[in-house]
Amino acid sequence: MRRSSGHCHPDAVDLADAALQDRYFPDLPCFGCGPANADGLQLKSHLGDDGLVVAQFTPRSAHDNGLGYLNGGIISTVLDCHSAAAVTHEAFERGWTPLPGAALPYVTAGLDVRYLRPAPLDATVALLARISDASEAEITAEVWLEWDGKERARATALWKRWRPRGPGRPD
Amino acid sequence: MRRSSGHCHPDAVDLADAALQDRYFPDLPCFGCGPANADGLQLKSHLGDDGLVVAQFTPRSAHDNGLGYLNGGIISTVLDCHSAAAVTHEAFERGWTPLPGAALPYVTAGLDVRYLRPAPLDATVALLARISDASEAEITAEVWLEWDGKERARATALWKRWRPRGPGRPD
Repeated sequence: MRRSSGHCHPDAVDLADAALQDRYFPDLPCFGCGPANADGLQLKSHLGDDGLVVAQFTPRSAHDNGLGYLNGGIISTVLDCHSAAAVTHEAFERGWTPLPGAALPYVTAGLDVRYLRPAPLDATVALLARISDASEAEITAEVWLEWDGKERARATALWKRWRPRGPGRPD
Repeated sequence: MRRSSGHCHPDAVDLADAALQDRYFPDLPCFGCGPANADGLQLKSHLGDDGLVVAQFTPRSAHDNGLGYLNGGIISTVLDCHSAAAVTHEAFERGWTPLPGAALPYVTAGLDVRYLRPAPLDATVALLARISDASEAEITAEVWLEWDGKERARATALWKRWRPRGPGRPD
């Protein structure tokens, strides 16, 4: 089920489609988005309309910011990992697949987060991302968290082509 | 035990001193640094030399970035929370204590993180922070993560005075 409206939200996406994480890195043990991390957050991101990538995230009660809202570090984690799904999909679409010895085509080089409003701890929030700039050397994604019709946090995520220097090592 | 060298590391600090988290917000359930969050990371930060605030952080195996290193979201979490200790201490020192209805004097408004090198998943890393700018309206901290003598990630954390709009609510 997809709507053609200009504003795409996770509830407008067919969540039965394979998540981007399961398509591109099913064996990854990443804390935020690795399908193979049993103790991780296991974020699942999907293609939405209008070039957006969308996800839903339901916090655990431990993800408190200390004030009864969603923790900023956890927000940063899911923004980073949601941008990973968007960037990895963009990379594969353009043929910039992982280089020999690399598990992923790109790695995060920077994440500039603004916390705009409190996000709830006891509700499912929406994550949205779009690619804003892409070259083979680096890809930039805009990624944000919404709840109840309002943006709660926004980040610019800068990803750089991962060129392994040694076997399986990013540095 | 404190050294007078210009380069302060957590191993030069008397870790028997009460951590800043235990001094300023012992009942906080924050995921990253709340002493009252049994499932959280329970970061403990201390005053070091030369105006630095220092901590040690030992990752859990689940904190994988998917490539065998420390996850960027967890790095952001501990950088944010370590800056919280530095900012809260600065605020109390200057008399900018929490306003009525606020559990903390300041809340994070932004975190701009650069991931410079991989950080290990199986070792204790060092966190360091210093206040770079302070007014009652907002405080900025530089905060970074080191391991094996090299900086692995660095962030600028912007904190704004928390002025509750309603009972116990930051917004």
